[in-house]
Amino acid sequence: MNITTYIQHDFVNPADLAGKQTVVIDTFRATTTMTTALQNGASRMVTVMHVQDAFDLQKADPTRLLGGERNTQKIAGFDFGNSPLEYTRDAVQGREVIMSTTNGTKAVAAAAQSENIVLGCFHNLSAVANYLAKQGKDIVLLCAGTVGKLSMEDFLTAGAIVDALPDNCALCDASIAARDMYRLHKNNLNGVLQHTKHYNTMLQNGLQHDIDFCMQVNTGTVVPIFDGIGFISDKRGE
Amino acid sequence: MNITTYIQHDFVNPADLAGKQTVVIDTFRATTTMTTALQNGASRMVTVMHVQDAFDLQKADPTRLLGGERNTQKIAGFDFGNSPLEYTRDAVQGREVIMSTTNGTKAVAAAAQSENIVLGCFHNLSAVANYLAKQGKDIVLLCAGTVGKLSMEDFLTAGAIVDALPDNCALCDASIAARDMYRLHKNNLNGVLQHTKHYNTMLQNGLQHDIDFCMQVNTGTVVPIFDGIGFISDKRGE
Repeated sequence: MNITTYIQHDFVNPADLAGKQTVVIDTFRATTTMTTALQNGASRMVTVMHVQDAFDLQKADPTRLLGGERNTQKIAGFDFGNSPLEYTRDAVQGREVIMSTTNGTKAVAAAAQSENIVLGCFHNLSAVANYLAKQGKDIVLLCAGTVGKLSMEDFLTAGAIVDALPDNCALCDASIAARDMYRLHKNNLNGVLQHTKHYNTMLQNGLQHDIDFCMQVNTGTVVPIFDGIGFISDKRGE
Repeated sequence: MNITTYIQHDFVNPADLAGKQTVVIDTFRATTTMTTALQNGASRMVTVMHVQDAFDLQKADPTRLLGGERNTQKIAGFDFGNSPLEYTRDAVQGREVIMSTTNGTKAVAAAAQSENIVLGCFHNLSAVANYLAKQGKDIVLLCAGTVGKLSMEDFLTAGAIVDALPDNCALCDASIAARDMYRLHKNNLNGVLQHTKHYNTMLQNGLQHDIDFCMQVNTGTVVPIFDGIGFISDKRGE
């Protein structure tokens, strides 16, 4: 298996992802949030680009819940922001959630031509790696990044997935760099993240609890997998 | 000083580089070659995008020499390919050389709005770092990359420059990752490079001697600096 890592979704030529399995990574916070919601029983997480699309889908089916953010803030009229801590079992079990997030949604759209799309974060590292290895197709690790730039938390998540995959995979240079950065810092990820931009933006917005939650490793076995409409829970990573 | 690292020139919004000092890095081989030619007495290295532009400039002044490559091969009718070993003192002293290279030239074009542009490679690491520190402006490390992807040798060169700059610089996430990769591998750069794509493409093309030459560290003090037409030798890095 080849493993290709993109540090930011704007750098992707969508046609290059055809026939591959793509992992979208937006660790702070979209993919952590969606993985958490599915772990807590949400029936499906649907990503949309525009806020109005979310309202339209809720109008068509009022049982749908709306979640998402713009510049780390909850969108007016939505049920949830983008904090994974909001998506409790009481709040989401059995419900479909429409998500509009700045970066994560764009990353999912960039992966549209992939054979399958899954969501990765620290919470489901091992499950995602197991799923990918079982599928056996070439792998794309698609980091959302932050405002067109490499974002360390996504890069480290990608590196952790590379590290968890078999040693005989063929790695692009970015995959090697991500893996080595993860191995260098895995015993103290906060030590490197505390010097990075997105982490500090979140701290300034009072999101320390979200950071702590997003940094939890292997809390579950759910692999969010795209079913053509949104992401549903898949247990093939077990 | 802020240090921003771009892993590939296609990812640059040229307007973001206005007012900054940009280091273009194409270690295998364009910036190593141009730095070497200036160290060996070339009067100026002019980069052009198209082969015909090079021939036109030579027609206007037949003392000009032509250098460059397409897909690692010398261009027909040119005086030199892109091997730094060709640009000896005997061959280039006092001469202006017109260079057309696949990636390096595009990277220089992407940096056009910068306050100043210099060329970086392993040969002039310390000189470039000294030059940047003296100028005191925000720094952009612009890696050429290979075919739209992160290329490890450029990333490590960028990391080495970050490592050589004062500790109080503010680093973007990519700058942190590049620096950490350099520090992790600095005692055995070949150990990580031998697993990378561009390195192996060069080996397959019989360019082991070029690789060995490009990996030499701090062989001189020339900082190639853009004078509006091309790159001339600057000794302000001493």
